[in-house]
Amino acid sequence: MDVYLDNSATTRCDGRVAQKVLEMMTQCYGNPSSLHHKGLQAELELRGARRELAAALGAQEQEIFFTSGGTEANNLALFGIPGAYPRGGRKIVTTAFEHSSVYESAKELERRGWQVVFVPPDSQGKLDAQAVADAVDEDTVLLSVMLVNNEVGTIAPLGRISTLARRKNPKLIIHTDAVQAFGKMPVSVAKLGVDLLTLSGHKIYAPKGVGALYVRRGVRLAPLFFGGEQQGKLRPGTESAPLIAGLGLASRLCRQEMARHTQTVQALYSACVEQLADIPGVVFNSPVEDSLHYVLNFSLPGVRSETMLHFLEAREIYVSSGSACAKGQKSRVLESMKLPQGRIDSAIRVSFSPQNTRKDIQALAEGVREAGETLARTTRRGLPNRRA
Amino acid sequence: MDVYLDNSATTRCDGRVAQKVLEMMTQCYGNPSSLHHKGLQAELELRGARRELAAALGAQEQEIFFTSGGTEANNLALFGIPGAYPRGGRKIVTTAFEHSSVYESAKELERRGWQVVFVPPDSQGKLDAQAVADAVDEDTVLLSVMLVNNEVGTIAPLGRISTLARRKNPKLIIHTDAVQAFGKMPVSVAKLGVDLLTLSGHKIYAPKGVGALYVRRGVRLAPLFFGGEQQGKLRPGTESAPLIAGLGLASRLCRQEMARHTQTVQALYSACVEQLADIPGVVFNSPVEDSLHYVLNFSLPGVRSETMLHFLEAREIYVSSGSACAKGQKSRVLESMKLPQGRIDSAIRVSFSPQNTRKDIQALAEGVREAGETLARTTRRGLPNRRA
Repeated sequence: MDVYLDNSATTRCDGRVAQKVLEMMTQCYGNPSSLHHKGLQAELELRGARRELAAALGAQEQEIFFTSGGTEANNLALFGIPGAYPRGGRKIVTTAFEHSSVYESAKELERRGWQVVFVPPDSQGKLDAQAVADAVDEDTVLLSVMLVNNEVGTIAPLGRISTLARRKNPKLIIHTDAVQAFGKMPVSVAKLGVDLLTLSGHKIYAPKGVGALYVRRGVRLAPLFFGGEQQGKLRPGTESAPLIAGLGLASRLCRQEMARHTQTVQALYSACVEQLADIPGVVFNSPVEDSLHYVLNFSLPGVRSETMLHFLEAREIYVSSGSACAKGQKSRVLESMKLPQGRIDSAIRVSFSPQNTRKDIQALAEGVREAGETLARTTRRGLPNRRA
Repeated sequence: MDVYLDNSATTRCDGRVAQKVLEMMTQCYGNPSSLHHKGLQAELELRGARRELAAALGAQEQEIFFTSGGTEANNLALFGIPGAYPRGGRKIVTTAFEHSSVYESAKELERRGWQVVFVPPDSQGKLDAQAVADAVDEDTVLLSVMLVNNEVGTIAPLGRISTLARRKNPKLIIHTDAVQAFGKMPVSVAKLGVDLLTLSGHKIYAPKGVGALYVRRGVRLAPLFFGGEQQGKLRPGTESAPLIAGLGLASRLCRQEMARHTQTVQALYSACVEQLADIPGVVFNSPVEDSLHYVLNFSLPGVRSETMLHFLEAREIYVSSGSACAKGQKSRVLESMKLPQGRIDSAIRVSFSPQNTRKDIQALAEGVREAGETLARTTRRGLPNRRA
């Protein structure tokens, strides 16, 4: 029986969402841009999904733009603002532990001549709001700060950051990558004080291949694609009506069930912390405070992440060593937190869903304990000159 | 009972494909980039789909890159080549009747300082291979010619164009938008002589939201997105494994059933031509020769396209006035063919699928005949000073 504890990488599609997608593929299959009834039916589904996302964010329907996922939405924000405000300054501020779709976009802007400041988090993965605001000046066009970190789960003090940063530059555009937050905690664009917000379907039990960017009314963005008349020409291309309808439903379900989900996941998290803390050598890389308890990052120094991952995999327990998008590369997030190398090399990210059970946590803890006993010993034995 | 004759806008998802997508969403839900078994299962599905597409095109697995659809793939080709060959010249050649995702990308390149030549088709929607090749010179980095036109169905003499154009410039990169051709006729990248080829899922009974770009080995492309390690960094972002697996299966089914589909659709086309030709005033905008018989464009001058469309819609017959992506705007394709305004204003595109029946054609022809009798009369009555 699978123990899937890699829900920050991706989630299993909710059965109700999957049924909705199926119905869209086979029944409501019109092209939303078609002028006839079949097209209109599909267009109404897009509008319904737009309304759902807007309601979840405290936004307006026309402020929601669908994309192929979080990566595209983050790219649209990162390149769209410099593209639309070419005379607005040549500086961008972000953090050192963003998801690669923000981080690499910022690096590309640097190559294109923009000045980019990467503000580091502290050793707990927390950001100092004042330090972020201090990096903003009147030449800064864009500030991009992720809401919940994908590897350690810390929640950025975004409302405070926005207030402080806007004092430095009232024209500043603020973007947040809320992929790991959306659907799991209340996310209000007004309270966060953001102009742009990225969300993704496959982190909230909708299928892979769909996401959205919230764009506050009045904020101009240059498109990434050119083509048809769809989505006000900001994002041309036939909308994936099945996936979008699925995303809308997934968002509604997350909103309706958020209280219950939070309670379930909090209990799983607490049990997991308690059981792992009992294992000799385990150290936590996620702080308990100011973090979303859907993610728990820990290390067992001496057992490399990949070794642990495969040891657990043999027991059909699935976790990760960090961001799936990094495909096993060394964690830039943990490096930005300046953790000791031994902790970075052995880091494991556990990420929960309300579908997980106490048994899953039990299985994980037993696996980690046994890995510690077997592998750390092997590793030590394997080390040359250990007794020398 | 719906009569859906707008299959060039989008198709109804094949039931087998829809089941595959469902299974991927709920069973094989891992992130293809995850290092564990759940990820590997999804990754194997991606590879299977890549193999299917490669086999269909006579290409290699590693030459297939998945995108969110035809628009993204066309944009990747149009911006990717200038981006990767910045010193390769400042000229691009395309045609005047491309899909908007090529045409508008070319227009954008023009705004960015590139010289773009738009070669017009003749009044039948046919391209002169020599005229296209003549537009290519040694400064031209990219030639983009669509294989089957989306509004009139003409097939470009692409093999001949490639041969002639490469004589003018052996370093030329050639792209084709094969969205309306793929799955409906044999498409061999070698025979066409192309370096890049765009295809889309939702035109071949797979869901909306997925497509692919064939990139010949050795051709460099600049990415549109920056982020994770997926698809050799040419197209970062978590792959939509469900849609990609669906696309792979749809491609396989189209290949296996192509002979039968062609026969069925040819019979529908012939019946449609015969019955429409009988209606007073009907004139065809699609030539019979050198065209793919999945599309039939005709006009009934005096009855505006939109009026006809809604008249037929009331009978649950769904056709279009042109590209869905243009949302009812005047057809640039027919204008490039220099048709008389009365024909452009009354143009109707009928597009078939093997799921259509003779009854559908019968219903369409009856509808058009009645529209001609009722609406043309009304329109004439409504014209001011007609007898003056």
